Amino acid sequence: MVRVDLNCDMGESFGAYRIGNDSELLGSITSVNIACGFHAGDPSVMRATVRQAIAGGIAIGAHPGLPDLVGFGRRRMEISPAEAYDMVTYQVGALMAFTIQEGGQLKHVKPHGALYNMAAASRPLADAIASAIHRIDSSLILYGLAGSELVAAGAAAGLRTASEVFADRTYQDDGTLTPRNWPEAIITDAEASVSHVIRMVKDKEVISQTGKVIPISADTICIHGDGAHSSLFARTLRSRLEAEGISVQSI
Amino acid sequence: MVRVDLNCDMGESFGAYRIGNDSELLGSITSVNIACGFHAGDPSVMRATVRQAIAGGIAIGAHPGLPDLVGFGRRRMEISPAEAYDMVTYQVGALMAFTIQEGGQLKHVKPHGALYNMAAASRPLADAIASAIHRIDSSLILYGLAGSELVAAGAAAGLRTASEVFADRTYQDDGTLTPRNWPEAIITDAEASVSHVIRMVKDKEVISQTGKVIPISADTICIHGDGAHSSLFARTLRSRLEAEGISVQSI
Amino acid sequence: MVRVDLNCDMGESFGAYRIGNDSELLGSITSVNIACGFHAGDPSVMRATVRQAIAGGIAIGAHPGLPDLVGFGRRRMEISPAEAYDMVTYQVGALMAFTIQEGGQLKHVKPHGALYNMAAASRPLADAIASAIHRIDSSLILYGLAGSELVAAGAAAGLRTASEVFADRTYQDDGTLTPRNWPEAIITDAEASVSHVIRMVKDKEVISQTGKVIPISADTICIHGDGAHSSLFARTLRSRLEAEGISVQSI
Amino acid sequence: MVRVDLNCDMGESFGAYRIGNDSELLGSITSVNIACGFHAGDPSVMRATVRQAIAGGIAIGAHPGLPDLVGFGRRRMEISPAEAYDMVTYQVGALMAFTIQEGGQLKHVKPHGALYNMAAASRPLADAIASAIHRIDSSLILYGLAGSELVAAGAAAGLRTASEVFADRTYQDDGTLTPRNWPEAIITDAEASVSHVIRMVKDKEVISQTGKVIPISADTICIHGDGAHSSLFARTLRSRLEAEGISVQSI
Repeated sequence: MVRVDLNCDMGESFGAYRIGNDSELLGSITSVNIACGFHAGDPSVMRATVRQAIAGGIAIGAHPGLPDLVGFGRRRMEISPAEAYDMVTYQVGALMAFTIQEGGQLKHVKPHGALYNMAAASRPLADAIASAIHRIDSSLILYGLAGSELVAAGAAAGLRTASEVFADRTYQDDGTLTPRNWPEAIITDAEASVSHVIRMVKDKEVISQTGKVIPISADTICIHGDGAHSSLFARTLRSRLEAEGISVQSI
Repeated sequence: MVRVDLNCDMGESFGAYRIGNDSELLGSITSVNIACGFHAGDPSVMRATVRQAIAGGIAIGAHPGLPDLVGFGRRRMEISPAEAYDMVTYQVGALMAFTIQEGGQLKHVKPHGALYNMAAASRPLADAIASAIHRIDSSLILYGLAGSELVAAGAAAGLRTASEVFADRTYQDDGTLTPRNWPEAIITDAEASVSHVIRMVKDKEVISQTGKVIPISADTICIHGDGAHSSLFARTLRSRLEAEGISVQSI
Repeated sequence: MVRVDLNCDMGESFGAYRIGNDSELLGSITSVNIACGFHAGDPSVMRATVRQAIAGGIAIGAHPGLPDLVGFGRRRMEISPAEAYDMVTYQVGALMAFTIQEGGQLKHVKPHGALYNMAAASRPLADAIASAIHRIDSSLILYGLAGSELVAAGAAAGLRTASEVFADRTYQDDGTLTPRNWPEAIITDAEASVSHVIRMVKDKEVISQTGKVIPISADTICIHGDGAHSSLFARTLRSRLEAEGISVQSI
Repeated sequence: MVRVDLNCDMGESFGAYRIGNDSELLGSITSVNIACGFHAGDPSVMRATVRQAIAGGIAIGAHPGLPDLVGFGRRRMEISPAEAYDMVTYQVGALMAFTIQEGGQLKHVKPHGALYNMAAASRPLADAIASAIHRIDSSLILYGLAGSELVAAGAAAGLRTASEVFADRTYQDDGTLTPRNWPEAIITDAEASVSHVIRMVKDKEVISQTGKVIPISADTICIHGDGAHSSLFARTLRSRLEAEGISVQSI
């Protein structure tokens, strides 16, 4: 039976600042990536989000990012692999403590934002991140962009990996995402987005921007949690996947 | 046989900034409190310090502090018990990840600076900290000021505790430390400091500033690592303790 | 003719995080206190807010706070007067640069949150803040709680001051605000709040919680910008003040 | 008469952390670049450094950097020109307030570390920085790498500029610095460094790594303040320049 995981970034509030519709989305997704305080999140938000995830039966992942709160971890920084290793370790450990306290279990790690994109393209960074995770707990699953260096590095390090695809992004002929600031990078039509996801999950392929059929692995689908219609889209996508006979469950 | 632990705060460097004579002191002490990034320390310093401690056979503790890098965690902040609970959890978890990676084990937690002093006097804060630690790992030892609410809270939470005394500080009639900015608060003479420690450890008592004999528990002695003569003093104190037949070892 | 200023805290967004209904409120208020990056705000938000204020013809003030972003500057910190002096200088200078660039002028300074409350009660802190402001520009107006040490310190330093009252807060017999967490501290009824303000402005008095008539100075009224009905309340208050023949204008 | 300025980065201490031999160097240099709190420095260090500079008769400059304290502003970040504009404005304004309070005057701005290097090569970033400075005070002097986009942008914006050379760095055939991690990038011999500087200042040329004679402008020489022998080298360089008949003075 075909299976897929629906993941969403959560716990991105910080102090008095609120982001996301976390509680509304929890009913539709199967795993959650929780910000760890570097690009978003704070200790109290982390605890609250871990509790919500456990209460909702959602698989918990750490979402470590670059130390850039004002840039939300989206600005590339020239960090060394050793720095990546250390900052991922720190953040994963911090979140793990909350999951232990609350009686849950940390299941996966997904780097955030610029760190995710940098690790998708740089094998030394990807190796450092994979090694940091493996040496904390070799049963953790590494989420990375489908076809990326991060997924390759995770496999090489002996980690279980999950190839991630995006419900609202188009792809290039080489299987990479169309850069966000290019025309037609974003799929804005909900129906088109659903069809795009179903094809990736069921047929393990995606139609590139030039019309080519590209093979792709889609173990997990990233749902955005911060748009006005995010929770409606999540419910729709989940029910359509299930109507196609696809089992929506965590990895 | 009388035993005592010698502990020292370490890993307080940050980025390009260096503090402390960490490597020189490691030969004399038996346990180390490693800063966790809030008042001092950064992920790379934490890893390096954990490695040094493991290589030196020193017991590793977390040294969580207030989120005040510019104030080095020494300025009191009006935080709630829930905030204390969360910030201690975060920092202890972060350090724990490094100890796991490096093949070591986290043995104790000692709050830092203003958090230590606030928790010594406030039972709600002390209870929150003790509970956070207990729910991460009930075998962790809580270090607190001898006679303080923090030690009481740790015992009440079911944690093993270590009563801490200071080699260079004088005491009041009620068993509390003479405030740092009062006259005669600090013992500057090394020989007087050594005698002061030996009396506390062997005789379980201390002479207060008014000359009264006060009972005191001294499971662990705090050695400062940042003075010019800190490593010489540590060596001297250790050899004098051993000459008195006191076993210097971690808890 | 009786005059009063309506002020509101703005520019409290930070990076990807949004707080406040800044643009809606600008039509009703006459002066704005702009966060300076320590408790809220960032350089880009500061510039955008300065531009909005200039476009709206609103008097611009700096709103310096404690270095506590996660606590939104609301947690008291044990800072020295010298530290207060330096952190106010830094933040006021930063905002002043944006006002110069945009062709505006900095008119006042109002400390934020815990720094405001601490300076209301501590004359040494209040003196340090007043002196820092006076030495940057002696024509700046210092906003402080009516009857507080901050207003007294500003006058003593040779600054023009503005006594601030709160539209939604009740007062004690000694003229201080009822602490926020006490029963009946907050006036939730809009009509009661309007009457409360009009009495303070026109009659220079306030009815305390025990029913006593207390004299009060009300040069400026603080309007909160973050509630759901904040912009409606601001419009209502302004039109009611004007209907009473009170001139609503900046100081 | 040939003139040159000797500049040094200062005020890089932070809280309890000390960096640099600021007071020793002040006797040999003619201008100082003061860190503004993003990559190093804090409000209290800024004030103390401004006071020292004024007391020593040294020209004061702002040294704005990237918001990366743990990386000391040395890690490139993918910031937009608008973000550069805003972060330079914020930091320059903050330092300007201290110079006003202390009775001094801000004379120049020199971007720090990765921001300096990024602005040397990117005209849009350089233009943003030059424009930010010009709109604060068009009499400020912009320090930039000799031959760089930053110097060109400053001139285009209508600012006076100072072309900076490095006493301890070798140059490529195209007039750029040999990258720091290449062999022979750093001149470690003090005598060679002095001759290198004198040639650049007197003859307006430098011998590249391949032996070519390259024209260069040298209005100001960067002296490093953090090495063990930095103050000795500064004194030696200054006396040797003066022995050559070169006037060492601020711009």
